[in-house]
Amino acid sequence: MSSTFVKQHRSKRPGYGLAALVQGDRLVPWEFERRELRPNDIAVKIQFCGVCHSDLHAIRGNSRFPLVPGHEMVGEVTAIGVDVTKFQIGDAVVVGTIIDSCGYCSSCKRQLEQYCLEGVTTTYDGIDRFDGSIMRGGYSNEYVVDTHFAYHMPTGLDPASVAPLLCAGVTTWSPLRQWNVTGKTVGIVGLGGLGHMAVKFAHALGAYVTLFSTSEGKLADAIVLGADKAILSTDEAQMVAQASRFDLILDTVSARHPLDPYLRSLKLDGTLCCLGIPKAMDFSPFLLTTGRRRIASSGVGGTLETQEMLDFCSKHNIAADVEVITAANINEGFERLKRGEVHYRLVIDMSTLNAPAKNAA
Amino acid sequence: MSSTFVKQHRSKRPGYGLAALVQGDRLVPWEFERRELRPNDIAVKIQFCGVCHSDLHAIRGNSRFPLVPGHEMVGEVTAIGVDVTKFQIGDAVVVGTIIDSCGYCSSCKRQLEQYCLEGVTTTYDGIDRFDGSIMRGGYSNEYVVDTHFAYHMPTGLDPASVAPLLCAGVTTWSPLRQWNVTGKTVGIVGLGGLGHMAVKFAHALGAYVTLFSTSEGKLADAIVLGADKAILSTDEAQMVAQASRFDLILDTVSARHPLDPYLRSLKLDGTLCCLGIPKAMDFSPFLLTTGRRRIASSGVGGTLETQEMLDFCSKHNIAADVEVITAANINEGFERLKRGEVHYRLVIDMSTLNAPAKNAA
Repeated sequence: MSSTFVKQHRSKRPGYGLAALVQGDRLVPWEFERRELRPNDIAVKIQFCGVCHSDLHAIRGNSRFPLVPGHEMVGEVTAIGVDVTKFQIGDAVVVGTIIDSCGYCSSCKRQLEQYCLEGVTTTYDGIDRFDGSIMRGGYSNEYVVDTHFAYHMPTGLDPASVAPLLCAGVTTWSPLRQWNVTGKTVGIVGLGGLGHMAVKFAHALGAYVTLFSTSEGKLADAIVLGADKAILSTDEAQMVAQASRFDLILDTVSARHPLDPYLRSLKLDGTLCCLGIPKAMDFSPFLLTTGRRRIASSGVGGTLETQEMLDFCSKHNIAADVEVITAANINEGFERLKRGEVHYRLVIDMSTLNAPAKNAA
Repeated sequence: MSSTFVKQHRSKRPGYGLAALVQGDRLVPWEFERRELRPNDIAVKIQFCGVCHSDLHAIRGNSRFPLVPGHEMVGEVTAIGVDVTKFQIGDAVVVGTIIDSCGYCSSCKRQLEQYCLEGVTTTYDGIDRFDGSIMRGGYSNEYVVDTHFAYHMPTGLDPASVAPLLCAGVTTWSPLRQWNVTGKTVGIVGLGGLGHMAVKFAHALGAYVTLFSTSEGKLADAIVLGADKAILSTDEAQMVAQASRFDLILDTVSARHPLDPYLRSLKLDGTLCCLGIPKAMDFSPFLLTTGRRRIASSGVGGTLETQEMLDFCSKHNIAADVEVITAANINEGFERLKRGEVHYRLVIDMSTLNAPAKNAA
C-alpha cells in the first residue's frame, strides 16, 4: 500500500510558528513542515489568527506535542492545487476548526461535518487522513487546506475581527439556528468570546435576548452588544424571577457550574444547550421532568452553516470584538484569557511572527 | 375568607383503604374521610387499582402520613355532582395520577396539566386546592374527583388491564407521541411496568423497536410484546454495535445507572428521555456535543393525551399485562415489585378490600 499518491506528495513545505513543545509549556518559535499541495488544496498565508479557549485546553491537555494551536484563520491564497477552481491566488480566505472528514457519512452528506461519524480531522492536533501527519495550527506563517474547508472572506468586515467567526462565531451560530431562535426568548450564559458572539447573533436573528453573567461589570456591555436584558446570575432573587421564561438558553461557560437556575428558567419543552464541555453536568433531573426540558450540546459548525454564518455576518455587519496582539505577546495573552480579562477575543497579527533566523541568513 | 363554599362542602364521605401510617411502614387497613361531591365531581366505586413503583417511593419518602397510595383506578360512577353532564351513574370510569391543576396557565390551556406552572394536585399525597385536605389514593373503596380528570373506560378491554394505562401507560405514551416515533428507530430501556407499555405503544405507533434489558430472561418476552430486537445491555460488544442508530431512547429505569452506552447509541439530534428520576444522571457531556444529542425527561400525561391514549388502546386492543392480587396481598406484592419479579404490573382487585368491622356491625 505504499501508493504513488503518497510518493507524489512526499515533498514538504517548510513552515514556522508558535508551539508548546511539551504539555503545559509556554509557546516558543518552532519550525516544522507542512504537506505540499494536493490537487484540491490551497496554501494560505496567514494574516490573523484568533486565540480560542480551546487552544489553552489543548496546551494543557493530552495533545500531540509539539503543538501549534490556532483554528481561527484569516489569510490570502498564495498557491492553488491543480484541480482548484473555488479560489484564485490573491483571494482573501478564512479557515476554521475542521479541515477534513470522511465525506460520505450521513452527517457529511448534510455538510454537518462536525458530526462526521468517523470523526473529523481538526485544524491542529488532528491526524491527516492520507499521510498520517499531525496538523499544525494557525499560529504560523502558512496553512495548507482542502478548499472544501476554506471559505471566501466575507465582504465589508475588518479581517482581524472576522477570524473569531470561524470558531466562537459558528459555535454559537449553529445552535441558535438549530433551535431557530427568531421570535423566541433566548438566554446567553457568559459574556466571553462565545457569549459576545451569541448575543450579537441572537439579537440579529430577532430573538429577545437576556445575558446572564457573574460579572456585574459585563451587564452594561451586554446591552451595548444587543441584549435586551442582562442579569447578574449570582442574584438569587433575579434568577428566581426568570422561572419558565426561556425557549433556549445557550450556556457558553466552560467551567463546571450549577445548571439548576438555568433549567428552572426554561419554559415547557425548553432547551439548555451547554457549549462548554465539563467533566460532568450538575443538575437536578427532576427539573427536566417537570417541564419536559432538555439538556443538549452542540459542536462548532459544518461547512454549510459556516458559509451561511459568514454571509449573514457580511449582510448584517457582524464580527467579533477583538484585541489584536503581536505574536510575541501570546503567552501574556493566555494569562489574560485565563483571568477572563479579554474583551472579547484576542487575535494575533501574524505579520508580527518572525521567520526563523537561519532562513533570514 | 371562611367562605360559604367551604361551609357548603364541610360534610364528608366516610372512606376506607390501605395506608402506610408512618414512613416506610407496611400497608394496613385504615379509615378516613373524603370530601362530599362538588358540582362537577363524581364519586367512583373503585374496582381495580394498579400498583406503581412510585407508590413504593411515596411510602419510603417524605410524604404526608398516613398515606393511601394508588393512582391507576378503574371503577364505576356511583354519584354525580349537580353540574355533571360528562358521566352518568353506572358509567365505567378511569382516574389517573393528576386530579387538579390551576386550569389557566399556558400548560393547562393546552391540557398538558402535568406541567401546570402552579403545580398539579396529585391523586394521593396532594393537597386539595379548595379545602386544604390531603388526597387519599385508590387503594380504597371510593374516589371523589372532578370530571375534568376522569375518563370513560375504553371499550373492549379487560378492566384490570386498563388500570395501569393511567400511569405506566400515559407516562410512556406521552414522550413517544411528543418525539413522534412513527417510522423512527426507538430504544426502550427496561422491561417493567413502564417498559412493557412503551414496547407495545412504540410498536403499534409504527416504530422500529429495540428493547434493552439487563435480564437475559426478558429478551424473548420483549419480542412477544412487540419489540423488533432485544439486546442484553450488559453485553458490551452488542452495545457498541448500536452506535448512532436511535432517534429516541426511552429509559424507564428508576435506579441510577450509567447513561453513556445509550447516549452513544443515539443518532445525530437523537434524544435520551429518562422517565426515572434519580438524584443525578451519570453521563459524559462530550457525548452530547459530538452528536448534538439531548437528554430529556417527561412527566406522566395531561388530559388531552390521556384521552388520546385511551382511544388508541381501545382501537388497537392494547392494555397492560397484569397480575391481579387481593388487597390482603399488597405488602407481599411490594416485595415482589422491589425484586423486579412482576410481569408486568400488579393490580389490586379492590372488591377484596374489607369494609371496616364497625361498619359491618
